[in-house]
This record gives sequence, structure tokens and C-alpha cells, in this order.
Amino acid sequence: MEENNNNTSRRKFIQQTALASAGMILVNPLNILAQNNNQNNMTKNIKSKGYAAKDNSGKLSPWEFERRPVGDNDILIDIKFASICHSDIHQMKGDWGTQQYPQVPGHEIVGIVAAVGKNVTKFKVGDRAGVGCMVDSCMQCESCTHGEEQFCDHGKTLFTYGNPDKTSPSGITQGGYSNNIVVRDHFAVHIPDHISLQEAAPLLCAGITTYSPIMNANFKIGDRVGVAGIGGLGHLAVKIAVSKGAEVYAFTTSPDKAKDILVFGAKEVIVVDSLDKLKPYKGKLDYMISTIPVQFDLAAYSSVVKPYGHFTQVGMPVGFELKLSNIGLASSRVNFNASLIGGIPETQEVVHYCADNKVLPKIEVIKATQINDAWTKVLNKEARYRYVIDAATF
Amino acid sequence: MEENNNNTSRRKFIQQTALASAGMILVNPLNILAQNNNQNNMTKNIKSKGYAAKDNSGKLSPWEFERRPVGDNDILIDIKFASICHSDIHQMKGDWGTQQYPQVPGHEIVGIVAAVGKNVTKFKVGDRAGVGCMVDSCMQCESCTHGEEQFCDHGKTLFTYGNPDKTSPSGITQGGYSNNIVVRDHFAVHIPDHISLQEAAPLLCAGITTYSPIMNANFKIGDRVGVAGIGGLGHLAVKIAVSKGAEVYAFTTSPDKAKDILVFGAKEVIVVDSLDKLKPYKGKLDYMISTIPVQFDLAAYSSVVKPYGHFTQVGMPVGFELKLSNIGLASSRVNFNASLIGGIPETQEVVHYCADNKVLPKIEVIKATQINDAWTKVLNKEARYRYVIDAATF
Ligand SMILES: [Zn+2]
Ligand SMILES: [Zn+2]
Ligand SMILES: [Zn+2]
Ligand SMILES: [Zn+2]
Repeated sequence: MEENNNNTSRRKFIQQTALASAGMILVNPLNILAQNNNQNNMTKNIKSKGYAAKDNSGKLSPWEFERRPVGDNDILIDIKFASICHSDIHQMKGDWGTQQYPQVPGHEIVGIVAAVGKNVTKFKVGDRAGVGCMVDSCMQCESCTHGEEQFCDHGKTLFTYGNPDKTSPSGITQGGYSNNIVVRDHFAVHIPDHISLQEAAPLLCAGITTYSPIMNANFKIGDRVGVAGIGGLGHLAVKIAVSKGAEVYAFTTSPDKAKDILVFGAKEVIVVDSLDKLKPYKGKLDYMISTIPVQFDLAAYSSVVKPYGHFTQVGMPVGFELKLSNIGLASSRVNFNASLIGGIPETQEVVHYCADNKVLPKIEVIKATQINDAWTKVLNKEARYRYVIDAATF
Repeated sequence: MEENNNNTSRRKFIQQTALASAGMILVNPLNILAQNNNQNNMTKNIKSKGYAAKDNSGKLSPWEFERRPVGDNDILIDIKFASICHSDIHQMKGDWGTQQYPQVPGHEIVGIVAAVGKNVTKFKVGDRAGVGCMVDSCMQCESCTHGEEQFCDHGKTLFTYGNPDKTSPSGITQGGYSNNIVVRDHFAVHIPDHISLQEAAPLLCAGITTYSPIMNANFKIGDRVGVAGIGGLGHLAVKIAVSKGAEVYAFTTSPDKAKDILVFGAKEVIVVDSLDKLKPYKGKLDYMISTIPVQFDLAAYSSVVKPYGHFTQVGMPVGFELKLSNIGLASSRVNFNASLIGGIPETQEVVHYCADNKVLPKIEVIKATQINDAWTKVLNKEARYRYVIDAATF
């Protein structure tokens, strides 16, 4: 277990903070811990260090910054691991719009709860916790109260990095490539003990982003499910769909991934070095999910789905805009949809599901100094399949 | 009834051809008529005249050309009316690819059968018949044998005009803005007596193109159905959806159409002079069909459909290519699909349905000399709602 390295200091910290607040009023057993915090965290900005983009070059460098104090509904997480998502690169490079810098990316975050606000009952200090793509929302609208906080009807979904945030000393949310994070308790999920923290990290974005549409597709055991684009998201999509009983067809442009993908449980790997390779599969699949994060021939790919079947795009290309041959889609008669991460209850669900069923990402743990190199490899499709940054190295 | 003008000459022709073939062997009662043809039609090219595009200017002018002789499985239709579809304009202008000229557009065609090939049992001379967007296919593949000839698995769908066609003296299929057409019997449908020919014409493209996805949407009586773009296709979509029991919400950019649209049976007309007008309808509709034949903000329009509902695009923009905000579609959680006309059995069905239920297009009959003017009006959204050309004026 990766967190063993830090368990000793972690326990010391918990004991120290418990000692520090020994004089406080005890409200209930949870609040014993909830209030056992270093009071400085509750009133003063919290020092943090991590790796930030300083411009749109796509390169990161060390940065020291501050988080807001732990509010009444917040928790402070001592980050242990943060993994690298292709979205981090897109956003830092400005592919999705102009960014404010310095900006710390990272929305696949796991760690140990180090402090909790006075209203917090969901976590106690010492809990294993994860944070994904969002850190706040209105919490009151139809979407928020129905577990789809990413679609807050009031537009108050606060994404984990780069969103304007008055509570943040830097003015924007700052992500998980850092050694701690302050987040509203609702937006953190529990990480059960039977999954390692570093293997849990990729579930917070890659896991939920693929799990949610796959569950929504509601396919039957034995149905043929296609996965296009076998990177960080795609390899988890393969594993999740296999675990849910699908016969999985994996479409990749990287021939050297084929062997791995078969180990992940795919029935067949199709190396799409030309769109002609899609033709034999025309109309054969019950459902398809694409994680391809760049422009691609959506109509050609969707044609492998049976008429009136569904095709979900989860990769987000530059500008968030896809071009679509209307006549191609008409010919395939496929329903196209797009999916954006998943709500908090479902994020908790995917973590439990993957822990329980040993649906684990294939990861490589790296040091902070390797981040830039890892980003280059992600762009070159050389990641196998998720880089996980050891936050102790920030 | 519009065909009365020509009934006398029509009957004379039938009598004459019956007389001419009086000496032939009679095989069965249908074949009595099947073989009662002017033998010249069966062996020699058939003279035709109509209006053709000579270049991509978007202007048409008179043209005399030839059709193939009537083959064993063909029928010759003496065209009475052909209506104007926005697609005619797109294609003649080269919006969907370079065209061969001269080219006669028109794929909403009705008339009277004037000759039938020796294998033809579906029609007899004198029958009222209609032809839509296609005139042949392989007739043997899975799609063709299941009534989806527009999606012929062998790519043999032959569209009514502009498709390479070795049997055509001009080398391409030539459409319905003309006084006759030769077509494989399977690709013509019967026009029942209780609908006028000029009102039947628009059903052959506008009717089937909207009817097919509306039927496929499988909504329940009382469901809220949106129609975006209220032109030739859209006004029929409104009428068909109303007739099928939907509560119809019509979205138009033409405020002066509002009164008509309410007469068509829509519950509400939304004049979309700004995308903000869509906002109050966010997530309110069960299904939506768009006939908008140009680039538009697909994600904004689709957002009026409830999460996980379906949105069908039937308008075909320039280049057949739509741009799509992936994140917009993810937010609306709407399934997007495109639909292309409908198969022959369903084309027959829509004609019967509309005739039986008095679901009739609002038309304006024009002379051939008015075609160019009518095209301009179509482009300026001034058509109310379908121009139908009187083929006697070619
Ligand atoms: Zn991500
Ligand atoms: Zn909300
Ligand atoms: Zn048409
Ligand atoms: Zn076929």
C-alpha cells in the first residue's frame, strides 16, 4: 500500500491535532475528530506547493501558493497522489479557452483528510479521500440535489482547477498537482481500504467519465461494446465494460497496445491505421464509447454501432467542438451523445465498484520532476496507461 | 382535382395504347395492361423536357433531354406535379459536392403511369404514382430487403438526380422538374384517390423525411415534441406530430409564420430571434426534430430536450457537416441523431397516412417559368410552405 510511507507522519499529525484541541467541547463522536484540527487551518490561508503552468506552453514548473482556510463545510486533504489526465494538458495549453496562470492542474486526487470544518460529518481526520473534476456547486437545484452536480442548473459547478473562485487566494481554483487541497466535503468521496490510493486516483476522472455513460448505456451481458481510443480513459472503459459482462471491441491507433488490451479482457483489438479497418464492423456493435480527445471521423467510427444504437463521446477535443457528417450519421442511424464526468454519488459508486471488483487502472508512479516528460508521452500516446504523481515529491 | 386538366388526353393515350397492343398474348389480367404500352417506349430513349441547372449558379433554364427506354421492371410516369425542396437548391449549387450539368432537380414527383415493363405487376397504366428521393438500389441486401433502400449495404442506392447512372442517356439520374420519368417500379408508390396529386407531391420527400424519424421517436400521446425550422419539411413535421397526438412546440426565426403554425395545430410558437429564447424551454421537451438546412447552434437547440431524450436533424447543411459543441451536448445529455428520408414501404405509408388523416402540406402551385423566383423565395424563407410546379408548363 503506497500510503504506508506516510502513515507514520500521518498518525503523528492526527495525534498532535487531537492533543491540540483536547480542551474543545465534544458534540458527538464524529465531531470529536471534526474539531480536532489545527486551528490555524481554519482561520489562515494554507500553504501549498505543487506544479503549475505559468503560461500556455504546456510546460509546468514548481509553484508555492495558498489555499483558503478550511471552512465550516470543508475538508483539507493531504494529497498523496494525483494522476495525469489528457484534459490537464488541453486546458493548460489554452485549447479550451484562455487561462489564468499560474494554474495548477490535476483532477484525479487522492489523499488523507487532515482537517475538517465544524459542520462536516462525512469525513473525519485520517480518512482516505478522493477529489475529482469538481469542488463545489449550488447544492440546491434540481441537478445538484439529484446527484448531477456537474450540470448545476444555476451554472455554479466549480471545476477543480482554473475556475474563478473568490475563496481562492489566487482567484481561481487550483488543482491536485500539489501537496494539499481544501474542498467542500460533499465533493470528496471515500476511498475504501481495499484499493491502493495510487490505483484509486485515476478513478476520479477517467473512471467516472467512462463508468457513467457505460452504466447509462444499459447494455445486456454479452452485448458487444466498442471502446475507441485506448489511453487513460479508454483502458478503464475496456476494463469496466468487460467487468460488466460486455464483449469488448477495442479500437486503437497504437498497434503496440494490442497485447495489453487483450489482457484487459477485450475480445478483439482493431488497429485503426486506416478508416477502412472499421468497415468489417459496420453495424455490429450494440454500443460504443469514444475517448478520443482530438478531432476524428465521428461518423466513420459511429458506423460500427448497429442502427438505432448509441455512441458516446467522452473525449473533449480542442475548442470542445466536433465536426460531424450529418449524412454519415444518418446512414449509420446511430444516436450520438456526449458525456461529462459523472455526479458525486456515481463517483463514489465507481470507486467502490472498482475496488470491489478489482477493476484497476494500469499505472506508472512518477515524481514531480517527471511531469513534463510524462505530458509529452501522453501527447505521443506513449502513456501506459496513467501516470500517477507521488505528491511527496512536490 | 388537379389532374382533371389532363385526364382527357390521359384516357385517350390509355385507349390508344390498349388498341395498339390488342394482338398481344394475354398472360393475366394485370399483364393485359402491363403490356399495353407504346412499344417505342420500350426500345427507344424517351424524350423529356424540363428545367435544368446548367452550372452552379443556382439558376435553372429549360432543357430537352432523354430518358432510358422503359425496362422490364420499369414504369414510365407522365409527371403532373413536382415540388421544390431546399435540397434541390443545395445540390444544384454544388453545396454538397461538384455536380455534373445539365442536371434536372426534383424529388417530389407525382403523375400518372404511362407505360409499364413486362415484369411490372405493382402498377398499371393510368395509376397515380409518386417518386421520391431514390429510383433504384441493389434490392437484395439486408437493408434493401428490409425496406431501408436508402441505406443499401452495397452502396447502390441511386438518388433521383445527379447520381451516375449508366442507363441514363445523360449519364446521371435526372429528376422531376420535367414532364416524365422512367423508374424501377419498386421505387414508385401509389397515390390514393382521396388526396390531390399536387398535395401529395411534397409527401415524397418532406413528408417521409419528417414522418420517419417522428415515427421512430415513438413518443406517447401528449408528449411534448419540438420542431425547429418551419419550412417545407418543418410545417409537415408540425402537422404530422400534431396528428400523432403530440403537444407541438414550433421554433422558427420567422415571426410572420407564427399565425400559420398555430393553425397547423402547434401548441406554442417560439420565435428564436436570439438563442436566449430557447432558455425557458431547457429540458422541457420529450423529443425534437430539426429541419434547419444550414449551420446552427445544435447544442443550444438540443438543450430544450429533456436529459437522455432524442433530437433528430433532418436538414442537410452545406457540406453535410454539422459542428457540435461536445460540452454543450454533454450538458444537455441529449441523444443526437440524423435521419435521411425513409424507405419505400414507409414512403407508401406516409402517403396513405396523410391522405387518410388529411395531413396536407400548404402549397402554392407555380408555372415552370416561376421556378427561379420560387428558389429565391425558398432561400429567403418566403415560401409558404411548398412550391409545387405544374408539369404541364414545362
Ligand atoms: Zn480528466
Ligand atoms: Zn446546482
Ligand atoms: Zn427533399
Ligand atoms: Zn441494397
